Amino acid sequence: MGIDLDVTLQGGRTTRVFFVETVKDLSSRLSDYGQRVLWVFDVNSARLFTSLPQNSVILPSGEKFKSWASIEKILCAALDAHLGRDSLFIAFGGGVVCDMTAFAASIYMRGCGLVLVPTTLLCMVDASIGGKSAIDFHGGKNLVGTFYPARDVLISPSCLRTLPESEYMSGLGEVLKHAFLASDRQLYDFLVDNRKAVLARDRETLSTMLHLSLKVKASYIERDPEEKKGIRQALNLGHTFAHALESLEDFRVRHGIAVAWGLSRAAHCSLDAGVCDASLVEAVDSLLRLYGFDIDRRVERGRWLDFQSAVAKDKKNISGKVRFVLLEDWGRPVLKDLPSALVQRNVIASAALR
Amino acid sequence: MGIDLDVTLQGGRTTRVFFVETVKDLSSRLSDYGQRVLWVFDVNSARLFTSLPQNSVILPSGEKFKSWASIEKILCAALDAHLGRDSLFIAFGGGVVCDMTAFAASIYMRGCGLVLVPTTLLCMVDASIGGKSAIDFHGGKNLVGTFYPARDVLISPSCLRTLPESEYMSGLGEVLKHAFLASDRQLYDFLVDNRKAVLARDRETLSTMLHLSLKVKASYIERDPEEKKGIRQALNLGHTFAHALESLEDFRVRHGIAVAWGLSRAAHCSLDAGVCDASLVEAVDSLLRLYGFDIDRRVERGRWLDFQSAVAKDKKNISGKVRFVLLEDWGRPVLKDLPSALVQRNVIASAALR
Repeated sequence: MGIDLDVTLQGGRTTRVFFVETVKDLSSRLSDYGQRVLWVFDVNSARLFTSLPQNSVILPSGEKFKSWASIEKILCAALDAHLGRDSLFIAFGGGVVCDMTAFAASIYMRGCGLVLVPTTLLCMVDASIGGKSAIDFHGGKNLVGTFYPARDVLISPSCLRTLPESEYMSGLGEVLKHAFLASDRQLYDFLVDNRKAVLARDRETLSTMLHLSLKVKASYIERDPEEKKGIRQALNLGHTFAHALESLEDFRVRHGIAVAWGLSRAAHCSLDAGVCDASLVEAVDSLLRLYGFDIDRRVERGRWLDFQSAVAKDKKNISGKVRFVLLEDWGRPVLKDLPSALVQRNVIASAALR
Repeated sequence: MGIDLDVTLQGGRTTRVFFVETVKDLSSRLSDYGQRVLWVFDVNSARLFTSLPQNSVILPSGEKFKSWASIEKILCAALDAHLGRDSLFIAFGGGVVCDMTAFAASIYMRGCGLVLVPTTLLCMVDASIGGKSAIDFHGGKNLVGTFYPARDVLISPSCLRTLPESEYMSGLGEVLKHAFLASDRQLYDFLVDNRKAVLARDRETLSTMLHLSLKVKASYIERDPEEKKGIRQALNLGHTFAHALESLEDFRVRHGIAVAWGLSRAAHCSLDAGVCDASLVEAVDSLLRLYGFDIDRRVERGRWLDFQSAVAKDKKNISGKVRFVLLEDWGRPVLKDLPSALVQRNVIASAALR
């Protein structure tokens, strides 16, 4: 197993991404990390093991446990195991587990080693690379955290075989988003041509898709590791709409599903604002439809104010400005303020307002 | 007011150290930071202001409040003030306030701006540069934290005029330590020649002393910002002894006083271990005596086991190894394991064991 992708981030730190074909390869690779290790699972990912390694901590599952209390659990387990700064935290799970383990690793004795083993598609293509660690704080998503790239990320498409369908589709939402952030159409064409194999989770197909998708994400974060230049923000394409929808629906909509919807809304707003052509919107919508995403969903008229205030609450906008990621063309994202009326007519249900 | 010292740390981040002559200059400089600012005080440093700026948080004073609860207070105040990633946290106080504000700044929205205004000598020469942020955790000092260099450090020797004598002496302990870590004898000679002015806290004298002391510290941290190469550890000269003494005395001994004692013990152990000459030990002890530090203090025989276990608990030793910083010569620190019997005979009171 070679290194399949190197991502160089803040301060020259490099994350090595390894693709691991089988579960057996994954175990053997993991055992190479030795004994000075703390394993972090959630109740779901812990079930993938028949017996858990020594020095394990199992967190409750779900966004509402993405809190300091969980971080304390991880830190205490590390102390109990007498781990020093030279030790390694290994996260085994989805985005919540990976984000929290990364945060704990970044602050334990001012930083110990970190390895991520994402077990969901969403986490593989999104949270696992880029070095963002986080917990939620006082109702705000990911308000507290650090930039702390993992040393290694181990990606095993075979983990995805047992992933619930809704989880898998949620991950695909982010993959489709990457297709429009790429400067070439490789990922887009691949998704159009291989729909059946992608949906059937064919291992080879998944490997190629993950590769292409990660390459797109890497190209943005490498140019702007700490999100200070307005480049990395492009990865939030669709996310302002998505976060507001998630908030409105009390997080019963899965993140990537909301992102897929948000991607379509961002494309329509881009057209409405005169920054892109209709052909791009057509391409976005048809790819989303090809994969079965519901892009016809609209927010009820009576909930517009809720939606609007959810948009304003989004972390990126806390300083008062609401900036949307729009698309000028394939691979040409742009950050823009949008008039409220424009957003409204592209988001709410009432035909009268269209 | 120009930049007086630049310290380049992890990832090329630079801390600019400014010496500010008068309290008036300090105020004017601080007002330049604008409005998007959160001020952090403790009850002592808050007293230095007749009216506090908007967006202030006042922490209780003392090591036992160096906890997550205090960090939450800072983060909540920042949220209440609607501060974004582009805002600035300004710490105004001693080591505890500066360490905690730095930690909070490093994790608020994955990192906002940080300015430190140390108000104690100890913090000026020690905590304020080097980028170490921390809280205590489960009884362990500074077990949780980040490396997050301040953007600016504002040093105003005039703040020291009202510092209690014991606090001032505590800071001098660290300054004297730096005198033996410097490769030249500039700081040492300065301390020998200017005892009276140093103890009288003459402003010019303080400025020179702080300059020389900070230059020594900077030379170690610039070569090893994240304490990974065994270079930065040298700044812990005397600290293994000091931490154990502090723990034994329930932190009733001030840190720098304990460090001064530890410096003498480290010198004697260095001689005993055959790594340095008697002349160096003589220089250490005579400088410490010149400034009135009690270097004849010994640990009671009956408390040796407590002392020993306090040594073993020291954070740096959590992985099982106890390494001491010894001195081979002026400016030539070395990390070494020491036989327990050697440490014992240099630390405990019983003449019979000498």
